[in-house]
Amino acid sequence: MSEQEKNSQKTKFQSFQEKTHEIIFEADTYYGKLFDVVLLIMILSSVLVVMMDSVPRLHDKYGIILYRIEWFFTILFSVEYIMRLLAVHKPIHYARSFFGIVDILSVLPTFLSLFITGTQVLVVIRALRLMRIFRIMGLYRFVNDSSKILSALRSSSRKIIVFLTFILLVVTILGTMLYLLESSINEGFNSIPKSVYWAIVTVTTVGYGDIAPVTGTGQFLAALAMILGYAVIAVPTGIISTEMFRENKNLKQSQTSCPNCGCEGHYRSAVHCYKCGSPLH
Amino acid sequence: MSEQEKNSQKTKFQSFQEKTHEIIFEADTYYGKLFDVVLLIMILSSVLVVMMDSVPRLHDKYGIILYRIEWFFTILFSVEYIMRLLAVHKPIHYARSFFGIVDILSVLPTFLSLFITGTQVLVVIRALRLMRIFRIMGLYRFVNDSSKILSALRSSSRKIIVFLTFILLVVTILGTMLYLLESSINEGFNSIPKSVYWAIVTVTTVGYGDIAPVTGTGQFLAALAMILGYAVIAVPTGIISTEMFRENKNLKQSQTSCPNCGCEGHYRSAVHCYKCGSPLH
Amino acid sequence: MSEQEKNSQKTKFQSFQEKTHEIIFEADTYYGKLFDVVLLIMILSSVLVVMMDSVPRLHDKYGIILYRIEWFFTILFSVEYIMRLLAVHKPIHYARSFFGIVDILSVLPTFLSLFITGTQVLVVIRALRLMRIFRIMGLYRFVNDSSKILSALRSSSRKIIVFLTFILLVVTILGTMLYLLESSINEGFNSIPKSVYWAIVTVTTVGYGDIAPVTGTGQFLAALAMILGYAVIAVPTGIISTEMFRENKNLKQSQTSCPNCGCEGHYRSAVHCYKCGSPLH
Amino acid sequence: MSEQEKNSQKTKFQSFQEKTHEIIFEADTYYGKLFDVVLLIMILSSVLVVMMDSVPRLHDKYGIILYRIEWFFTILFSVEYIMRLLAVHKPIHYARSFFGIVDILSVLPTFLSLFITGTQVLVVIRALRLMRIFRIMGLYRFVNDSSKILSALRSSSRKIIVFLTFILLVVTILGTMLYLLESSINEGFNSIPKSVYWAIVTVTTVGYGDIAPVTGTGQFLAALAMILGYAVIAVPTGIISTEMFRENKNLKQSQTSCPNCGCEGHYRSAVHCYKCGSPLH
Repeated sequence: MSEQEKNSQKTKFQSFQEKTHEIIFEADTYYGKLFDVVLLIMILSSVLVVMMDSVPRLHDKYGIILYRIEWFFTILFSVEYIMRLLAVHKPIHYARSFFGIVDILSVLPTFLSLFITGTQVLVVIRALRLMRIFRIMGLYRFVNDSSKILSALRSSSRKIIVFLTFILLVVTILGTMLYLLESSINEGFNSIPKSVYWAIVTVTTVGYGDIAPVTGTGQFLAALAMILGYAVIAVPTGIISTEMFRENKNLKQSQTSCPNCGCEGHYRSAVHCYKCGSPLH
Repeated sequence: MSEQEKNSQKTKFQSFQEKTHEIIFEADTYYGKLFDVVLLIMILSSVLVVMMDSVPRLHDKYGIILYRIEWFFTILFSVEYIMRLLAVHKPIHYARSFFGIVDILSVLPTFLSLFITGTQVLVVIRALRLMRIFRIMGLYRFVNDSSKILSALRSSSRKIIVFLTFILLVVTILGTMLYLLESSINEGFNSIPKSVYWAIVTVTTVGYGDIAPVTGTGQFLAALAMILGYAVIAVPTGIISTEMFRENKNLKQSQTSCPNCGCEGHYRSAVHCYKCGSPLH
Repeated sequence: MSEQEKNSQKTKFQSFQEKTHEIIFEADTYYGKLFDVVLLIMILSSVLVVMMDSVPRLHDKYGIILYRIEWFFTILFSVEYIMRLLAVHKPIHYARSFFGIVDILSVLPTFLSLFITGTQVLVVIRALRLMRIFRIMGLYRFVNDSSKILSALRSSSRKIIVFLTFILLVVTILGTMLYLLESSINEGFNSIPKSVYWAIVTVTTVGYGDIAPVTGTGQFLAALAMILGYAVIAVPTGIISTEMFRENKNLKQSQTSCPNCGCEGHYRSAVHCYKCGSPLH
Repeated sequence: MSEQEKNSQKTKFQSFQEKTHEIIFEADTYYGKLFDVVLLIMILSSVLVVMMDSVPRLHDKYGIILYRIEWFFTILFSVEYIMRLLAVHKPIHYARSFFGIVDILSVLPTFLSLFITGTQVLVVIRALRLMRIFRIMGLYRFVNDSSKILSALRSSSRKIIVFLTFILLVVTILGTMLYLLESSINEGFNSIPKSVYWAIVTVTTVGYGDIAPVTGTGQFLAALAMILGYAVIAVPTGIISTEMFRENKNLKQSQTSCPNCGCEGHYRSAVHCYKCGSPLH
């Protein structure tokens, strides 16, 4: 093969790569959008197929056909995964990215099920691929909104840790108290871990009722825990609201830094630097 | 019929149409208000009649009388519907509007029940007609408030979609995990859809308790899901609060700064600067 | 009796009235405070006695003694009620006030129980008298805080009515759908009112589990309702938060009205009227 | 012993005390951090051991070994407690502090269990020691955040008391009403305290379902209580959000207005007016 042929081949591959990339990874062109829509429908269908296959009645009736559909989707997604690897300049970079890992994890279980039975239900991890949905609906805005939510959560993470630690301490001690009170007469509180589980069910206001106190004192403590859990939800809500409001307001701060002293965080309406007083523009 | 007679008839019809419109569609005059109040009482009564008729004990005792009352209301509402059609200039426009469709849907089930038994319970759709209640209580303000709520929801819709997608992914994966863990020993988790249903019951803190994990690991995962669901409710709350606050503020303060002293935060209705007293524009 | 004696008697009565008023109705003096504390302990005790008397095990054992204590408290509260009537200048005014009605209602049931058995449990209405607790803890501040909460609720009442109407329509229609789906196979949905009750239990995330859908479609609809109820709680929270925040901020508005044009609602920092520009003060 | 020897001993003790203090009480040095990390792992392990020992199945199998591990931890924590006493200048001051009391309470139950069986589960109080976790993760910031949350709770405490009093009155009266309605036909409402317990379970949206109304009127009242509880959670949330927002704002903006142009809303750190650039103060 001459040098020229090599180059020509390379160029052909590059042009193939570019087109594939455009279709698979981007959603600006008609075919790019079409690919994403088809992919989403297929992901949803394949998750649905796995779910249906887990229903005993449907499994008995349509087990074989569902099994075949499942393999059809798996092979399609495998081909798609290989295409994705080929379409990027640094395949390893993609393979290690969040979506790269999700993509491989969403085909592996079916292959694995050839050796270990029962693993095919793990393909519901495919549901994570649905996050690509945001791309079709205008990636930029959704990513922007997601990152706003995440940024609010991140900047209030310390306060939320404090709050969750408090909740965990409360449920540990409450659970132990109920264990001491009721373990001898109530099957539901026969160990501390189970009692702590009950305390979590109660404080978060879920309230299954599979375990419930029967003594007066137990019910009194449970009532206190409920009122605590009911009122205390206001705390994380207040934290997040305040944080989101601040985020929101920060947008009203300009990005300019003072040309004199370099400090930042000026109001959009600011005319002078609040540090040194020199005019901004 | 002479041209004159036609005109006179037309005018008569127009005057009839105007009066009917005033009474049926508006609530400013005494008769308009009276009509609305009577209508509301009748809607409430007819919904109540359908509900009562569905209670076996009452159906056995008063079935025939309730059936007759139901027909009485249906005929009245049918007449009202025809009157509404006659009272507007473009009947097709009304027939296609939200309330037009609700109005026809709220009489059809009774007529349908002559052919298909059991359809008469569908008349509870009449409850939607109760939204006209806002008209009596001063339509303008309520519509204004409703639209404020809707507008806050609309401008935060993208963030809420991100949030709901996150919740759906969580319940899908959580449900599958519990299915893997407990399907062999716990009747409640015998299929993935049922397990996902359980996960939704848990994360939203509803907690029926008809399905509940029995293994230690299952209860541990359930506890994590509860704490997640309990804390995560703070996110949509924060989103909506921030949005409502912004809406609220937008309505109150203008963006103008004083041309003299440059201070901001003027009321929209302000004519003079509250600092220096110089006119704004 | 001479004119002088009458006057002297009147004066005696007035001085008695003043002292009684000071002790019973006010909490500034030492005896006033003491009276309130003793009263609160007695109210709490008497509510506790009624509650204890309703527990079968305790009623069998201590029924007679609890009955006597109950009469002891009732006579004391009756005397107190008469004292209150005597201590004020316009007894009828007090008798018609909220607390006046509560005070009489909290003794009547015991007397009534002489004629109709079982009415004595109604004395738990005495619990309402505990609201006087705020007086001891510094009436002014609590009343101020309560009125702030109430004022926020009042100014957002229209929005809350819109929200509650929406919830009621949702539960009516959801309940009817579940009735149509499951009434034939699920005892829990055998009438529309019961199905609507279930819908309320679900949407408010209470989730007793005494009634739960068993069909796939029913569980799917229930899941939608849960997610709706879970997310929609953000709406009243946002409404109240915004309203409270506004109330809070309103305090930053001064009470001065413009000496020139009389308009109100100026910022505390305002120097000039925002309407006419004339200086404030 | 000569004076010099005494001094030398004292100095030795002081230097020992200083080093111990640095390691045990501080987290700035490498050994200080290591000590804290090891301690935290040991606290978690010991709490886990107690929990495991309470599970009947594990107790039967590993009871003896868990018992020994428990003693091992107890002796270690006792030694640590003594070291802490020695490491501070005023041991009594530490012994009376919150963490001092927690530290002694977390070893006492095991010793007590030699005399009274069953008390060893009380060592879960050790969980409270985990609050030291904040020290490793940068004490200052967490304490700052905790105190912000606490300060918001404190400044809204009066409003929250008003809210909780309202909830308590509601559940008392609601419970009594259900007792009157259903005590004769429903085992779950056979006493007022139990009915009040049910009312708390309902209003806080926990909803166990162990007690549930069966009559139509009872279910109607329950439905009202649910909607109340569902909507009313917005009140404490609004209170806390507003308070947190105010706290937040207080920390950022100063109350000074520019002496030159009078504009407000300057950062606390501002030296110059952001509008006109003239110095503040």
